[in-house]
Amino acid sequence: MIFKEGDSFEIDYEVTEKIYNGFIDIFNDRNPLHTDEKFAKERNFTGKVMHGAILTGFLSNFIGEGLPEKNVIVLSYKISFIKPVYLGGKLKLFAAVNEIFPSVNCINIKYRFEDPARVTVSKGEVSIKII
Amino acid sequence: MIFKEGDSFEIDYEVTEKIYNGFIDIFNDRNPLHTDEKFAKERNFTGKVMHGAILTGFLSNFIGEGLPEKNVIVLSYKISFIKPVYLGGKLKLFAAVNEIFPSVNCINIKYRFEDPARVTVSKGEVSIKII
Repeated sequence: MIFKEGDSFEIDYEVTEKIYNGFIDIFNDRNPLHTDEKFAKERNFTGKVMHGAILTGFLSNFIGEGLPEKNVIVLSYKISFIKPVYLGGKLKLFAAVNEIFPSVNCINIKYRFEDPARVTVSKGEVSIKII
Repeated sequence: MIFKEGDSFEIDYEVTEKIYNGFIDIFNDRNPLHTDEKFAKERNFTGKVMHGAILTGFLSNFIGEGLPEKNVIVLSYKISFIKPVYLGGKLKLFAAVNEIFPSVNCINIKYRFEDPARVTVSKGEVSIKII
């Protein structure tokens, strides 16, 4: 087991135009909250709200590319969206190994995404298995 | 409240080349499990395993586009990956309203993705708020 409890990771992400437009192109979620500035502002957001599932894409990147072990598969994601994220939003992912199950080669990671003001905008857990 | 407990929805999805390649292009998760056929087969999968977060993209589509109410925002996703999904995989999403919190305009939806053999490959919950 390459991981130990408390191992921690930090990665910077940004919701770029490429990611936002690409996400809409492939998943076709054009809900007005995500695409209509006026609609979003009328509901007290400061702009188009980015799709929460974009942050799940960042988690995929973190697990697949950001760990010191490439032989991994995701068992489950939990993600809560605490504050809206807007286009161009810069996020820092903080993740730490929370539990280790050595007999089955599984680990549970807790994470949060912080904005540049150090406010947590999203948090959750990922369970993975080393394969 | 437009929703009532037990309201159910079905939508067909498919992990096309466009979605697979687009996901990799925007999120840059090139973990060998997802990109290297030989690596995946050596670990007893029948081919490259699709990114779990692609299914979260389908959930985004379902919530944003597939409900009879457009004034919605996702509070949280939970998703478990029970069986691998491969390129070209056809999935049917079955979702049903599980709990309603009328005083705060929130609902909880339970869902599963089935493959064409009616095997559940993924399941979880989405909580949303009507805004």
